[in-house]
Amino acid sequence: MEPKAIAVNQATEDTIVAIATPSGTGAISVIRVSGSKSFDSIDSIFKGKTQISESASHTIHYGKIYDVNGGLIDDVLVSVFRRPNSYTGEDSIEISTHGSPLIANKIIELLLDQNLRIAEPGEFTRRAYLNNKIDLAQAEAVVDVINSRTEASLRGARNQLDGILSKKIDELRSLLINASSFIELELDFAEEDLEFIGHEELLERVEKISSEIEILLSSYSFGRVIRDGVNVALVGMPNVGKSSILNYLLKESRAIVSHIPGTTRDIIREELSIDGILYKLYDTAGIRDSEDLIEKEGVLRSREAIKNADIVLFVSDVEQDIPTELEREVGSIIDKNKMINVLNKIDLKPNTDKTGDVYISAKTGEGMENLFIKLKEKVFHKSNYSEKSAIVSNLRHFQCLKKAEGHLGNAKNSIFNKLSGEFISVDLRSAEISLSEIIGEVTSEDILNNIFMKFCIGK
Amino acid sequence: MEPKAIAVNQATEDTIVAIATPSGTGAISVIRVSGSKSFDSIDSIFKGKTQISESASHTIHYGKIYDVNGGLIDDVLVSVFRRPNSYTGEDSIEISTHGSPLIANKIIELLLDQNLRIAEPGEFTRRAYLNNKIDLAQAEAVVDVINSRTEASLRGARNQLDGILSKKIDELRSLLINASSFIELELDFAEEDLEFIGHEELLERVEKISSEIEILLSSYSFGRVIRDGVNVALVGMPNVGKSSILNYLLKESRAIVSHIPGTTRDIIREELSIDGILYKLYDTAGIRDSEDLIEKEGVLRSREAIKNADIVLFVSDVEQDIPTELEREVGSIIDKNKMINVLNKIDLKPNTDKTGDVYISAKTGEGMENLFIKLKEKVFHKSNYSEKSAIVSNLRHFQCLKKAEGHLGNAKNSIFNKLSGEFISVDLRSAEISLSEIIGEVTSEDILNNIFMKFCIGK
Repeated sequence: MEPKAIAVNQATEDTIVAIATPSGTGAISVIRVSGSKSFDSIDSIFKGKTQISESASHTIHYGKIYDVNGGLIDDVLVSVFRRPNSYTGEDSIEISTHGSPLIANKIIELLLDQNLRIAEPGEFTRRAYLNNKIDLAQAEAVVDVINSRTEASLRGARNQLDGILSKKIDELRSLLINASSFIELELDFAEEDLEFIGHEELLERVEKISSEIEILLSSYSFGRVIRDGVNVALVGMPNVGKSSILNYLLKESRAIVSHIPGTTRDIIREELSIDGILYKLYDTAGIRDSEDLIEKEGVLRSREAIKNADIVLFVSDVEQDIPTELEREVGSIIDKNKMINVLNKIDLKPNTDKTGDVYISAKTGEGMENLFIKLKEKVFHKSNYSEKSAIVSNLRHFQCLKKAEGHLGNAKNSIFNKLSGEFISVDLRSAEISLSEIIGEVTSEDILNNIFMKFCIGK
Repeated sequence: MEPKAIAVNQATEDTIVAIATPSGTGAISVIRVSGSKSFDSIDSIFKGKTQISESASHTIHYGKIYDVNGGLIDDVLVSVFRRPNSYTGEDSIEISTHGSPLIANKIIELLLDQNLRIAEPGEFTRRAYLNNKIDLAQAEAVVDVINSRTEASLRGARNQLDGILSKKIDELRSLLINASSFIELELDFAEEDLEFIGHEELLERVEKISSEIEILLSSYSFGRVIRDGVNVALVGMPNVGKSSILNYLLKESRAIVSHIPGTTRDIIREELSIDGILYKLYDTAGIRDSEDLIEKEGVLRSREAIKNADIVLFVSDVEQDIPTELEREVGSIIDKNKMINVLNKIDLKPNTDKTGDVYISAKTGEGMENLFIKLKEKVFHKSNYSEKSAIVSNLRHFQCLKKAEGHLGNAKNSIFNKLSGEFISVDLRSAEISLSEIIGEVTSEDILNNIFMKFCIGK
């Protein structure tokens, strides 16, 4: 394929360089170079058995890098990738050095003297997209793959990078183009009053596409929690054992996931991963009627946690009764679909007549396995996604799908109301363009900047 | 060459694996595998165009890694290195993945299922040493190269890794073996009372070796400051401008080096790099006679800083006179060779009749360039080391050289006192063994463990 039209700008003429490994000291660091000057630039500082510019693609060369005064910087391995068989689709090299930031920076300085420039965040992946190595949804998945912190999120991102979502979008686009081409044919032959497709059949086709888009849209809430984790608020009266439950969960979780950089423990209390799903647990102050201002503040925070929660564990115990008024209030602020009623302390009263969705004792561990099952049910709630389903986890994709859905709604109205073909055609085309934006067939500099801004330098 | 005798143990039969890039997320992570099972283990989880076990050395292969259930883990690049043309001298591969710790750990888990084991710290380099790819002094330089924080320390470590010290040690060993072989010949022919070398010539030869070892020993103080940085204490009476000097230096330094992890600002105050040399500046409390306990504590700390300093900047100003008693005390605790007398505030009295090694104004910057020159002179004090000199920067090497020096002293005494050849021979052999320990021709499991313990895993 030809490079994308948008690629024809000065930027892609530059040869770019960046450190591709995490910062800090380690055994090795890798420097990545991409662009037409890759081979010549390394040849001017590297002495090995053969010149890099004369080496075959996918070969590795041992040698030494010297500064302009002949001072040895490091002995390195240079990997050669010839276009189009590289990550970016351009001539590229990777330089593997001893893992010192000082050495890597020194080598980058020497390369900058060869008229290379430092890569912008995500610029290697951006070039891969511009040179048709991957589409835009796949490029976006690269960041998700790197940032994945649980197996489930990694799997979701990997599938997107593998093009499972892109393939689905392409299918829908084909169906749309196909449907609108009938209308356009009719418009072309308007004077002859031919009908190439019945209105009913057209409506049927559009509705089919529409319902597929709705399935994708409904996967978003699932895709998002898989990608970013599930917010779980622990809510209940004082002393019902919320903190004991939290402690039990943390102890039992197979891997306690490290905290997200930049979030304070005051906001996210604890994170844990059960069966590959990341749960972010918000322990809240006990809620009760109170005139005490400080307690009111605690209750306000509970409300906030409830508002942001994907799942609310409403905890009560076998001993205390929930005041009717409180129960009513809780019912008014918590979405029933999000709530799991947890009855704690059943070790004290095994034959309690109180009711809950799950009966547990955080003290003995009884029933906790059921709590895990209930949590998982809520996450996979109504969702029947297999390994190979196209799932939407990215807000931008969700918004593009929403736009497409809107256009299709208009199209359906127009068809239903037997409006002129022009109206139907415009809406179908608009829906198709909205879908194209997801995979970047149609895009703008602004959208690209916005996407690649989120990448690290070197990717 | 054959692998070293010490290598014949179970450990090197294992195939080892580790992450070689710094921890954290980045564009790419690299996993290193070394040992006889390298190729078979990757082939069991990797699907590419060709099998790794059938690929040529120094080639790169794109493909995908799957778990046992056929789940895709990542698309990766596998680099192939066939023995002996690898870092370790064994069959090795490097797997380049998307830079997520989750992916790297997953792949390592899959490899561990193939009967690989996690590498111990420095085990790749240890194998390189055991397989005669590098000697022990070079192996030790690997850590110094990685940890280098200034250009000068990097250059020193790089030279050691390049074998400049090793070559020097080898030369001295040859001279020693040569000298002692004459004695041993005489001993073999003792009954015939032959003299293969005159006592005077022998003494001359041993003294030559001895003086070369002394040059190496004397390079240690220089080598150490190059490697670890120069401790500089700022000492003087209150209000002479110590802190102003510190601030000026920090502002002027071309690169402020980041702080060593684990050291608190209370202990090391500031670090700066001038012309590639790392200076660790200790600002001290003003010293004066005082009965005040807290001030006494401050003075005690100044004494401590002075004791540990490689260079003491003794600061006075044009206005205050130093009490005779204080001057005497300072003279008694500061080594004259370490001291630079800095006369500050010359902007106030340009024609002062006070004397100092350098006249400055931290306020106007006057004379500061001279202070830099004086600092550099102290660092390179008496040292005339060129880029290509063998320099000792490692305490273990220093201690081996000290032992060798001691043995040679004994040998010289024996020769001088015309003792029997056996005595001379034993000392010369002992000196040779001490030198051999530096490059690891003679070594023990304990010494090796001690050395490689300091490495990171993956190197």
